[in-house]
Amino acid sequence: MKKLLLVAALALPSLAAAQPAADPAATLRDQAMRGDTLAWELVEGLTTEVGPRQAGTEAERRARDWAVRRLTELGFANVHVETFEMPVWMRGEERAEIISPFPQPLILTALGNSAATPAGGLEAEVIGFQSVDELRAAPDALVRGKIVFINHAMRPTQDGSGYGQFGAPRRAGPTLASRKGAAAIVVRSIGTDYHRNGHTGVQAFGEGARPIPAAALTIPDAEQLQRILSRAGDVPVRMRLTLTPRNIGRRQSGNVVAEVPGTDPSAGVIIIGGHLDSWDLGTGAIDNAAGVAITTAAAHRIMQAGRPRRTIRVVLFGAEEVGGGGGPTHFRVNSPAGNAVMVGESDFGADRVWRVEFNFAQGNAALADRIAALLAPLGITRGGDPANAGADLNEWVRAGTAAVDLNQDGTRYFDYHHTPDDTLDKIDPAQLRQNVAAWTAVLSVLANAPERIEGIAPTPRPAR
Amino acid sequence: MKKLLLVAALALPSLAAAQPAADPAATLRDQAMRGDTLAWELVEGLTTEVGPRQAGTEAERRARDWAVRRLTELGFANVHVETFEMPVWMRGEERAEIISPFPQPLILTALGNSAATPAGGLEAEVIGFQSVDELRAAPDALVRGKIVFINHAMRPTQDGSGYGQFGAPRRAGPTLASRKGAAAIVVRSIGTDYHRNGHTGVQAFGEGARPIPAAALTIPDAEQLQRILSRAGDVPVRMRLTLTPRNIGRRQSGNVVAEVPGTDPSAGVIIIGGHLDSWDLGTGAIDNAAGVAITTAAAHRIMQAGRPRRTIRVVLFGAEEVGGGGGPTHFRVNSPAGNAVMVGESDFGADRVWRVEFNFAQGNAALADRIAALLAPLGITRGGDPANAGADLNEWVRAGTAAVDLNQDGTRYFDYHHTPDDTLDKIDPAQLRQNVAAWTAVLSVLANAPERIEGIAPTPRPAR
Repeated sequence: MKKLLLVAALALPSLAAAQPAADPAATLRDQAMRGDTLAWELVEGLTTEVGPRQAGTEAERRARDWAVRRLTELGFANVHVETFEMPVWMRGEERAEIISPFPQPLILTALGNSAATPAGGLEAEVIGFQSVDELRAAPDALVRGKIVFINHAMRPTQDGSGYGQFGAPRRAGPTLASRKGAAAIVVRSIGTDYHRNGHTGVQAFGEGARPIPAAALTIPDAEQLQRILSRAGDVPVRMRLTLTPRNIGRRQSGNVVAEVPGTDPSAGVIIIGGHLDSWDLGTGAIDNAAGVAITTAAAHRIMQAGRPRRTIRVVLFGAEEVGGGGGPTHFRVNSPAGNAVMVGESDFGADRVWRVEFNFAQGNAALADRIAALLAPLGITRGGDPANAGADLNEWVRAGTAAVDLNQDGTRYFDYHHTPDDTLDKIDPAQLRQNVAAWTAVLSVLANAPERIEGIAPTPRPAR
Repeated sequence: MKKLLLVAALALPSLAAAQPAADPAATLRDQAMRGDTLAWELVEGLTTEVGPRQAGTEAERRARDWAVRRLTELGFANVHVETFEMPVWMRGEERAEIISPFPQPLILTALGNSAATPAGGLEAEVIGFQSVDELRAAPDALVRGKIVFINHAMRPTQDGSGYGQFGAPRRAGPTLASRKGAAAIVVRSIGTDYHRNGHTGVQAFGEGARPIPAAALTIPDAEQLQRILSRAGDVPVRMRLTLTPRNIGRRQSGNVVAEVPGTDPSAGVIIIGGHLDSWDLGTGAIDNAAGVAITTAAAHRIMQAGRPRRTIRVVLFGAEEVGGGGGPTHFRVNSPAGNAVMVGESDFGADRVWRVEFNFAQGNAALADRIAALLAPLGITRGGDPANAGADLNEWVRAGTAAVDLNQDGTRYFDYHHTPDDTLDKIDPAQLRQNVAAWTAVLSVLANAPERIEGIAPTPRPAR
């Protein structure tokens, strides 16, 4: 009995050294990991009480009202809205059918900024390509007047890097097809699932490219169209396509801003956040009620623990999905006077954080080490740097502000991304808590760090 | 060296006894398991070249034409169509939205025989119930003029037995809601997935129940509506529902019949098959191009192996989904003169067979044992009997004909059942081959068995 007690007494200090339980950042991290309920409450609230909230619509305005009310109730300071105007494109009807040789309906969804077909649809022959490069290489005469179909073979990756490569049919395809005189374009959805839900997303017609109808077939429908083309052989495959989206002119969008005031105004501000708008098809649970909830819940934990040295600003951006009006607005309104010293966005779903990356100046190496050590018990490894923050905060990084990226597991992200399937049931409460714990640890260290925080000039990477 | 050869020589006969490779049924079984490609070719052909094929429509007629052509090309004898007439209900538009307090669209799909709303939709308060029993217990005054919502908690089971219990909201809910004066009913889809695809299915308004609009919310939408009701508290939740289905009158449907002629007309006929029609939402890959393909491919293997003693008749039934016109038609046309001695249907997807059940007379116990022994190497266990065949052949069983059920793994069947997601990509080629191997073994034994084959009076079970 005595011996056991002695062993225990001897063991304690070394245990404490291995697991720095005395570190307030570690304590806050562990409390979040064990018991955070705020993030779930927020993600459920936003997706249920507002639901889909496309930028520039009445629904996005209701999301701002919801956010202002909730942030105020939670005790945040300086809760306000930064408004801006933006052009709004609205989805209409969307239908497709094979007319011959194998008549049947296909399911698709219009891409952002798609032109409309005539109300009764347009009918044309389908010409299939396996890649954007194959379309690029095709003679214009072969494409003219036809409905271009681009297939691809996107597969899931943990870091989501396939989105850059496989996103080309959506981003470059419509402009290329238009320049070649195509009547319309349908691409295989940029996604990794096998459900009859199309993946929408923004695309912009390049200079001189007349807008044409542009849509994404669900992945089962893209594979069906590929089989139809194969089995038809030399017989032309004809499709009728009906899309009736409209450009409704300029409308108001906005960012919702809230702060945890710091004790030292000279120490600079930390900006974190997610985006409040979503695509219209789902309720925007993973994209991006989750980011809104994770960063708000983490900032709230710091606030509850006592006033930090640095002010933490939570920004819930408007209009990220349709091209990102909110990020530039916040940068314009707040820079250079905003004196931000660190930025970070959560915008890649709600699955667990698996990697941390920094873009800290050399003098902040110890600070990065300290954060990485705090994240390791959450199963988070250290990446190769540099961080680039999310789409909404990238301008700050380009201006030299420090950033931390907490990379989330993206293996199933593109199963649901920009589809009707982006709903609350796709979020795992335990993984959501791990996100809150990770951001809480990062904020706890950075908001209270005695040293100056400085970034480095970033290496450009494609925005997500 | 000599010793080794001696051991090998001694071992061979006992190996042969353990694995009866000399049994032609086992050889055919193993050839199917290793190399069947016909079933995949048929399931791909039907789902691609015809696609959705609702009973009584032009698409179902094209499916019959396709089947007649393919069965003839494959060398079957006596290929013909048995036609019959049936009333046809056609889906129209289907939309729902919450008007207040949390405005947003919901995704649903009309149930078979649903009434239409006015063209502009109907608007009413939603009243939620957790079960049909809870609705039954509610005072009529509480339900009158409202949109009834019935939730439930169906979970996947290997044998699919949840469909009987959890199907009640779809089968009994609309009639019950109508009798209580409800304006409409929306039920949680009878399914086990989390995708924004509604599960349709047939229901019939009982005597004296005025048809009302009836639809199935997708499972994420049903959970969303439940959360909306919870968060609304005492505030009424109002929904606008638009369904525009039509009854288009009587149309022609039909069964496609093909035979492998036997050598002994007095030995009776074996009837197997699946159903050719599908719901309109998907391409009917698992329900039931798979059953069509599996039974056709198995019968084709027997035909290729030489003329069997008994005639094998493959029947591809029409109109199974909407109430089963094809099964009764075939029974009426062929009974009692048809002298069927055994019936079996494949209509539970394309996943592996895990269990066999019989309803053989006592005198055929050895025959059942022989079949079970041939199926064991495919991982198929023996169930508790009696078999009841599928919905289309159940009348034969009730009349005393022997039946074999090859139960398929239904764990993921209700993820896709009656949804747009019932597409070719849901079929695993290896599991499809195991189905062909199992049916080939069953047919090989029964088509050539020297003994008489007789059934027993069955125990009634709910039809699937």
